[in-house]
Amino acid sequence: MGMLSRLEVKRKKLVRRKNKVDKTFYNGVVSRYKYPVLTHEHIPISWRFDLDPKTNPYEIERLGINAVFNSGAIYFKGEFYLVPRIEGTDRKSFFALAKSKSGIDKFEMIEPIIFDRIGDETNLYDMRLTEHEDGYIYGIFCSESINPEKRELMDAVAKAGIVRTKDLKTWERLPNLETKSPQQRNVILHPEFVNGKYLLYTRPQDGFIDVGGAGGISAGFLDSMEKPVIDEEILIDRRIYHTIYETKNGGGCVPIKTRFGFIHIAHGVRNTAAGLRYVLYAFMTDLNDPLKVTYKPSGYFMAPQNEERVGDVSNVLFANGAILKDDLIYLYYASSDTRLHVATIPIERMLDYLINNPKEAFNTYDSTKQRIELIKRNKKGE
Amino acid sequence: MGMLSRLEVKRKKLVRRKNKVDKTFYNGVVSRYKYPVLTHEHIPISWRFDLDPKTNPYEIERLGINAVFNSGAIYFKGEFYLVPRIEGTDRKSFFALAKSKSGIDKFEMIEPIIFDRIGDETNLYDMRLTEHEDGYIYGIFCSESINPEKRELMDAVAKAGIVRTKDLKTWERLPNLETKSPQQRNVILHPEFVNGKYLLYTRPQDGFIDVGGAGGISAGFLDSMEKPVIDEEILIDRRIYHTIYETKNGGGCVPIKTRFGFIHIAHGVRNTAAGLRYVLYAFMTDLNDPLKVTYKPSGYFMAPQNEERVGDVSNVLFANGAILKDDLIYLYYASSDTRLHVATIPIERMLDYLINNPKEAFNTYDSTKQRIELIKRNKKGE
Repeated sequence: MGMLSRLEVKRKKLVRRKNKVDKTFYNGVVSRYKYPVLTHEHIPISWRFDLDPKTNPYEIERLGINAVFNSGAIYFKGEFYLVPRIEGTDRKSFFALAKSKSGIDKFEMIEPIIFDRIGDETNLYDMRLTEHEDGYIYGIFCSESINPEKRELMDAVAKAGIVRTKDLKTWERLPNLETKSPQQRNVILHPEFVNGKYLLYTRPQDGFIDVGGAGGISAGFLDSMEKPVIDEEILIDRRIYHTIYETKNGGGCVPIKTRFGFIHIAHGVRNTAAGLRYVLYAFMTDLNDPLKVTYKPSGYFMAPQNEERVGDVSNVLFANGAILKDDLIYLYYASSDTRLHVATIPIERMLDYLINNPKEAFNTYDSTKQRIELIKRNKKGE
Repeated sequence: MGMLSRLEVKRKKLVRRKNKVDKTFYNGVVSRYKYPVLTHEHIPISWRFDLDPKTNPYEIERLGINAVFNSGAIYFKGEFYLVPRIEGTDRKSFFALAKSKSGIDKFEMIEPIIFDRIGDETNLYDMRLTEHEDGYIYGIFCSESINPEKRELMDAVAKAGIVRTKDLKTWERLPNLETKSPQQRNVILHPEFVNGKYLLYTRPQDGFIDVGGAGGISAGFLDSMEKPVIDEEILIDRRIYHTIYETKNGGGCVPIKTRFGFIHIAHGVRNTAAGLRYVLYAFMTDLNDPLKVTYKPSGYFMAPQNEERVGDVSNVLFANGAILKDDLIYLYYASSDTRLHVATIPIERMLDYLINNPKEAFNTYDSTKQRIELIKRNKKGE
């Protein structure tokens, strides 16, 4: 057997591996799992190597894969579908479809997704998949181009790109979202009409990396997805001094509808001497007024741990896909821009967490008082 | 047996350890090895401790070693010689000679190298060793001094320092290279005369870390190594938006001559939210016109993985030494500014990789098309 056949056998074994709950972690909300669901090693050999011994006698990798991470997610026709960001060794990212019956393991890559290019778009990533009540599945992603007024090579512009599909096979490209902000990232389509309009969550920013004066997760309304123009962005979850979302924050997963409101899973970013640190937090918005935050526990519910801490961009957890199925949230989160994991969250536990966990205290005195209060109550109960 | 004798026994055991190929990595080009070839633990005890119990009764380390990394390399009188950057616990780097018969293990440190100081030079590192056809072995390295017009303590100036030797024992210091650029790093001497002149690869830069407007790996000609002045630098491999060498790039190893051209192994740098990321890439230049790049596959061929990812400066692979011996390239690369590894590359595989791997696509659409094309061809062949 040639080297490439052996590699494919090894890969298939990896794909078939059963996943299991990581019992070393407990916060009462989230179950983490032992193995990532997708890594660069999950990508089929035929996507990386020319299998023809005549044109590739040395069995050399022709198009390497660097990493598989931030993934959109949707439950479709009885299976869990993912659309991760896959980055080649050439640094270009592309989307591809993967599916699994369990949602926690055995994700098999199906095929790369390609659609019409707009302008001189250079890179694409971080797709959020929304099954909208208009009948389409929308993919909103980051579309990156070089800044036409660039002073530096790295001076890029991030916009929200939009595609839609009905079958996860053919993808129709719509115009990029237009807003008043010079740049946009982390844009998400709400699954329902609100007063007959489409609702998009946005995260305006001044520069390519820096959000600048921009305040946080915002929202805006659209009459049409074919002419996606937002005139006004309304701030719904602002960044705050000395919180886990001090430097920036951004929407993560498509809001999950429950009887108490919409669950948002977002990321918060703070700065450190070793670069930015990304953690996951959650909040709830009102069923009738999705722009109103009703519950928001303090702090994060997931932060990088163990192997998650290190990667191409260390100290990062990021999630842009979640599926609610049979009262269980399947949260697909990536660690350190390198690999994709799953976590499962029983919906009743997530609701209890959101509604009953203490709110942000904003300073260490009030935070410590929360803790002393808790310890006192527990002592009384002894 | 005292503690120091025990430490030296342990060190000798480490030095004598047989290395072996790391079979978990495969890209058809490079073999990685299980163990680093040099680390701070490889440095002799007598280079760190005062062994006299009268003056060092507590067996205290007097001059610690922090790290052993970026190394020049040369095959000389039947042995593999390395000149790594060795950094003390005081942050000062020095060069020292190490040798091995196999090239992949059992490197024993011989002695530190010292030569004449120029001006108020503060630090030295990253030596490239070139066996030139003029009969000398040259070492070109980074010579760092404080900026005389400094506004900040850290405001240093990087220049190319030059030494030469015939026996790897006595090193003659020549004047520093002069170019039109305010700073220089990653300067390498080409092993042959080109039109009767010396050829140096340079990497001009505006600041100490930032290359600024400087375009990438360049080249210039010299009449004499005793009066090393380059009037004109010609850009030969420029940095490009949204590649692995977007932020900066620099020459790595001395070009390796083959029947198809000169092989260059260089480093490419991009920025991330957690700092810079350094990976290794390769290109080929024309035999008759070494300033002309003839082949350049897209992306990197080696990036930090596993334990390589973390160190004093995480997320860095860097190589400044390679030896071609019996059709095998021995590539000495350092990970995260902390330790030195070896990789071996059969020359025919490197040539196939350089000549037949796809070129840079510059955007994700053309890159994804390359991959879809590959998948299609593989499907046909099934």
